[in-house]
Amino acid sequence: MANQFGHSFRITTFGESHGGGVGVVIDGCPPGIAINMEQVQAWLDRRRPGQSHLTSPRAEDDTVECLSGLHNGISLGTPMTLLVRNKDYKPDDYQNIQKGFRPSHADFTTQAKYGVRAPSGGGRSSARETIGRVAAAAVAEQFLQQKIAGFSVVAYVETVKDLSANIEDPQEVTRTDVDKTPLRCPDQKMVKSMEALIMDAKKSGDTVGGVIFCGISGCPLGLGEPVFDKLEADLAKAMMSLPASKGFEVGSGFAGTKMYGSEHNDAFEMRDRRVRTLTNHSGGIQGGISNGEFIYMRVAFKPVSTIFKDQKSVSDKGDPIMLNPNSGRHDPCVLPRAVPMVEAMAMLVIADHYLRQLSIAAGAGDQRV
Amino acid sequence: MANQFGHSFRITTFGESHGGGVGVVIDGCPPGIAINMEQVQAWLDRRRPGQSHLTSPRAEDDTVECLSGLHNGISLGTPMTLLVRNKDYKPDDYQNIQKGFRPSHADFTTQAKYGVRAPSGGGRSSARETIGRVAAAAVAEQFLQQKIAGFSVVAYVETVKDLSANIEDPQEVTRTDVDKTPLRCPDQKMVKSMEALIMDAKKSGDTVGGVIFCGISGCPLGLGEPVFDKLEADLAKAMMSLPASKGFEVGSGFAGTKMYGSEHNDAFEMRDRRVRTLTNHSGGIQGGISNGEFIYMRVAFKPVSTIFKDQKSVSDKGDPIMLNPNSGRHDPCVLPRAVPMVEAMAMLVIADHYLRQLSIAAGAGDQRV
Amino acid sequence: MANQFGHSFRITTFGESHGGGVGVVIDGCPPGIAINMEQVQAWLDRRRPGQSHLTSPRAEDDTVECLSGLHNGISLGTPMTLLVRNKDYKPDDYQNIQKGFRPSHADFTTQAKYGVRAPSGGGRSSARETIGRVAAAAVAEQFLQQKIAGFSVVAYVETVKDLSANIEDPQEVTRTDVDKTPLRCPDQKMVKSMEALIMDAKKSGDTVGGVIFCGISGCPLGLGEPVFDKLEADLAKAMMSLPASKGFEVGSGFAGTKMYGSEHNDAFEMRDRRVRTLTNHSGGIQGGISNGEFIYMRVAFKPVSTIFKDQKSVSDKGDPIMLNPNSGRHDPCVLPRAVPMVEAMAMLVIADHYLRQLSIAAGAGDQRV
Amino acid sequence: MANQFGHSFRITTFGESHGGGVGVVIDGCPPGIAINMEQVQAWLDRRRPGQSHLTSPRAEDDTVECLSGLHNGISLGTPMTLLVRNKDYKPDDYQNIQKGFRPSHADFTTQAKYGVRAPSGGGRSSARETIGRVAAAAVAEQFLQQKIAGFSVVAYVETVKDLSANIEDPQEVTRTDVDKTPLRCPDQKMVKSMEALIMDAKKSGDTVGGVIFCGISGCPLGLGEPVFDKLEADLAKAMMSLPASKGFEVGSGFAGTKMYGSEHNDAFEMRDRRVRTLTNHSGGIQGGISNGEFIYMRVAFKPVSTIFKDQKSVSDKGDPIMLNPNSGRHDPCVLPRAVPMVEAMAMLVIADHYLRQLSIAAGAGDQRV
Repeated sequence: MANQFGHSFRITTFGESHGGGVGVVIDGCPPGIAINMEQVQAWLDRRRPGQSHLTSPRAEDDTVECLSGLHNGISLGTPMTLLVRNKDYKPDDYQNIQKGFRPSHADFTTQAKYGVRAPSGGGRSSARETIGRVAAAAVAEQFLQQKIAGFSVVAYVETVKDLSANIEDPQEVTRTDVDKTPLRCPDQKMVKSMEALIMDAKKSGDTVGGVIFCGISGCPLGLGEPVFDKLEADLAKAMMSLPASKGFEVGSGFAGTKMYGSEHNDAFEMRDRRVRTLTNHSGGIQGGISNGEFIYMRVAFKPVSTIFKDQKSVSDKGDPIMLNPNSGRHDPCVLPRAVPMVEAMAMLVIADHYLRQLSIAAGAGDQRV
Repeated sequence: MANQFGHSFRITTFGESHGGGVGVVIDGCPPGIAINMEQVQAWLDRRRPGQSHLTSPRAEDDTVECLSGLHNGISLGTPMTLLVRNKDYKPDDYQNIQKGFRPSHADFTTQAKYGVRAPSGGGRSSARETIGRVAAAAVAEQFLQQKIAGFSVVAYVETVKDLSANIEDPQEVTRTDVDKTPLRCPDQKMVKSMEALIMDAKKSGDTVGGVIFCGISGCPLGLGEPVFDKLEADLAKAMMSLPASKGFEVGSGFAGTKMYGSEHNDAFEMRDRRVRTLTNHSGGIQGGISNGEFIYMRVAFKPVSTIFKDQKSVSDKGDPIMLNPNSGRHDPCVLPRAVPMVEAMAMLVIADHYLRQLSIAAGAGDQRV
Repeated sequence: MANQFGHSFRITTFGESHGGGVGVVIDGCPPGIAINMEQVQAWLDRRRPGQSHLTSPRAEDDTVECLSGLHNGISLGTPMTLLVRNKDYKPDDYQNIQKGFRPSHADFTTQAKYGVRAPSGGGRSSARETIGRVAAAAVAEQFLQQKIAGFSVVAYVETVKDLSANIEDPQEVTRTDVDKTPLRCPDQKMVKSMEALIMDAKKSGDTVGGVIFCGISGCPLGLGEPVFDKLEADLAKAMMSLPASKGFEVGSGFAGTKMYGSEHNDAFEMRDRRVRTLTNHSGGIQGGISNGEFIYMRVAFKPVSTIFKDQKSVSDKGDPIMLNPNSGRHDPCVLPRAVPMVEAMAMLVIADHYLRQLSIAAGAGDQRV
Repeated sequence: MANQFGHSFRITTFGESHGGGVGVVIDGCPPGIAINMEQVQAWLDRRRPGQSHLTSPRAEDDTVECLSGLHNGISLGTPMTLLVRNKDYKPDDYQNIQKGFRPSHADFTTQAKYGVRAPSGGGRSSARETIGRVAAAAVAEQFLQQKIAGFSVVAYVETVKDLSANIEDPQEVTRTDVDKTPLRCPDQKMVKSMEALIMDAKKSGDTVGGVIFCGISGCPLGLGEPVFDKLEADLAKAMMSLPASKGFEVGSGFAGTKMYGSEHNDAFEMRDRRVRTLTNHSGGIQGGISNGEFIYMRVAFKPVSTIFKDQKSVSDKGDPIMLNPNSGRHDPCVLPRAVPMVEAMAMLVIADHYLRQLSIAAGAGDQRV
């Protein structure tokens, strides 16, 4: 169960970073949905390493194959299996790594937990595992957009280290805006300084982190459950399950703790012939349930752990060693590639809760708002 | 499934804030554990409203009854059912509330989702629902402490609005330190200003929020799963499922995004005859798996939504109205009572992952670190 | 999870046979359903011991209380908790029992599994656990009958030991027919001989078993999943989870193995303006999915294990002993009381699959047959 | 979730009978287990069509590939993905089939449920789906046999239509005995008549069914849960989820309903220094929990639905038609190939409950029998 996410739109991802391949089985995609595999490939291309000088040069082409669940481009309601073979695998690069536990990587804890681990590439802890998530999200997106007019999920890089983008209205940002530069920050004025900061870090063998903003437009009213499976709780889990994420906030988030209740509350009014809020500190979710407003959240990503500097560590046998894996291929900054990952997790949460709500709506009938 | 949490130590909470009662069924507590019901009651007393002038005056005594699963103080391995009857129920107080949707409450979204809702008291969205969680955690704590020497979970109020406690070593804070004042902030120097800030807000009919710090000491190495059920992901979901929480961070959190990788990485060394880290920006979790260090996290709570000031809203029928529920009983600040709730959720996550790890350890055998 | 049944209409039962009480939490009953608690009580009264000379004289009145999930007789979509207190508890009766493991009871295996067990009454292995299931089914029935015109589940005693009822058309049997006699066999001509057989067994301190027939009328087309969660697979699990059941068959069952394919196949025709089968050896389920025909199945119940005769056994300490618990209260024949239990499990399976189908139908749209 | 089986040893199968391939993801196989892929292939070869004149001539070689979860023959504790490509796919054979709903197949119900279906080969309802189950079981077997000395699962053909094998002691039958003839019936005296019966049916374009016996030796004491997840309930679901199965019984089964309690009860004695039963009508399970004795069960399989005779049916458009798919490739008798499928499902149930018991045993400690 540890490799599954979702109840009704449930995905199981599989695959180590170095091995036969990585992928996903989607169990619960409704039948009769038109699924364009080119759109799935396009999502994977956005996630792929080697897209620019900002990310890892690992040159996988990450071509996806659909093994089951689809016939003539229509979902059958059966498990959809999406597989990406591993290709550009250079175990030699990882030779030194094996000798010791890389600081702030999963090497040590994986060994401690399982007593065995994939000898190279990080196994399941590699960002390569997210291929399955992103492929599944590309399916979820097509399902949701066929069911909900105006539904979209857009994420972007908001901060890189201490540099912040200034976005007037996040709700207006489109994926096209975001993808204009390899950095995936829609504040074009900030892009240059941010890129410079990343390239400087890269030059010195170092890495940086930052914050991704993610917005969901057109989410139907009523998704999410009032207790444990609050929409923000499932989004939090989704985001905090991404490699390198250290924090999550929805709506006003941590900053909201500095406001008075009278400032923070979102008053209601009738607008567009439906109940709307005047402000949106709630971030589109109240009591765990979507209220029809723009849903927005932020995810903090730490600087990538793989650096090209000397680091103190310990070998498998418990001896002190000095590590400097100066030949592997890694991202100086995970953020540009984290953008589609964050979008993917948001998509999967909404698809799942959309299906879950159907059985509740069956009873709610015409009494709903 | 919406009212369940955990896989192996699984709880199901039930009950509306006004109705027959609230409680929990624990499915998965191992047999043979000595469970002291007085300790369960003590946990509930810490969560209870009416403990001080800082919290809601609702005068429930919240006496817990164990309906099943226990014989002569020993767990049977069967479902443990803990019930707290509702007593101090004044539906009249809520009369005005019913007329319109309270801003930033769950009234509107609950109606939108279900087409029906409990007429008073917030139903499942009430903080009263957390009684079941806290009672279950009191059982989980006894189980864990009988299995793991030195295991403890301690949370405390770190900030109230813009006032911050200054705690030198969070790892040294005990529950006794925390409970010294009703505010549950262990920085005794800050308590007075924080209390004043809360009382000022109360006087003006307003409310404030803040941040809870939570630390887990003695967590065994190897808990958490490497992909979706990362320990921090499950903790994030746990915390973000608490009423009024808006943000979560683990270890360095959002602040960590401002560091270089070379600063953020936690180097390894041999200490106390085991692999330890020199720093702990990871917050005791690496790659989703506990590394044996102190686990710590922060949870942001917004200011309570129920204020005693005029607020614009909309009635059930869609007419604009002005709300001012000036006679209900509510907390000016949720933080002191949120402390045991945060501890409870951390406890439940650890109990679940502790049990889950047993089936992995069965294979790992003697190869583990 | 061991005490849960169902995915979307999920129940958790709790309670030992001797203790505070037994009951159920229903998680997933849709909101807006009118639930009549008298109907719930009526189901429990059918299950109750002490209804006639044929069953156990234990005189519980089994009054049910609804603790949550219902307001003014309407389901809220929140967990519905139904509790029955234990009353007529005579631990003395069980004194001798404790000394050794009762043959073919769960005493020995429970001790072996848990290392601890409820000292009397069979704990969770008691038929008293089924109170929670029956109460939940009474809710499920009201939900299903409000959604599906003509839906009903009727079970009856088909055989007692080697005596068989002769029912011309099982589809015509109503619950009223069944309840005409305490035996719950609708073949009035057989009732006397069956009762005599049971009373003879009772007089000699012995017990008998038999077979329950269960039919489901009006089940919608399309329920059940094609692989693991076939409708017959979930019904099989449901029935085989009842105390004392040893066998299950659907449609032609074991007898069907003696037919040729050309005899067994159910030809299709158009009838009543829909696709119907000419015969029904499939028992209303094809490929795991309901086909709109009458669903029928049989469940074998062994003779009750508690007999009033000397039996060889072993004590807790491993010494050979002779058991004869000649003062407990037990049924000479479990069948009459098993009738509502079988109906309950069928009801729970259908309610669950009905809700599950909603998310599939969301995609299937107008392409469905 | 519909394509998953098991809680702790959880498998997800995928793939249509005609498409990219079929397979399984195993989530929960413990790390550190030596997995021999040749043994996995050997299980698949036993399940494969075209092994003899008794089964379908479809000539797949069913070569299995391991995509993940294994390194140097050792399980990593990560998802193990096993894939078998589809090869011998002749869509032309199925042309006539598409025109109408084949009697007693899943064509009609699949169309009714999903509104869309794989155009040929039965999609998920094909026996080809069981490749994933059998491959997973081959892994489960290696895990269990490395943990439990003397553990084995052996199934065989007990009856073909009205011919019954006579096996003196089922506990003594080995897989070698079973595989001596293509029929997989260890009563060598009956094999000829059974084969003749099948070949006669085949000649006349007809099919036959029968009963598979399955025994589990060396199952540890204490597996299974006392309420819904009784070992026999999970076995029943497992078996009734196999294509064409119509009935299940454990221990004395339906025949046991004809005995008195005093005959049916299994007396206890001390033997081999542990608590044993004198008889075994319980079939190795008491109160849902294994008691350390031989576990045995029977599964009824109906005659295969695909026959080569004229059959009345209905077209997709609701017109009456006559079907005779005289060129497809199908088994005249499913039983020989059902033997490894039955063994597979038994294996998966035991592996799952073995892992589940670990968290209970954690509490039970030294109080266990």
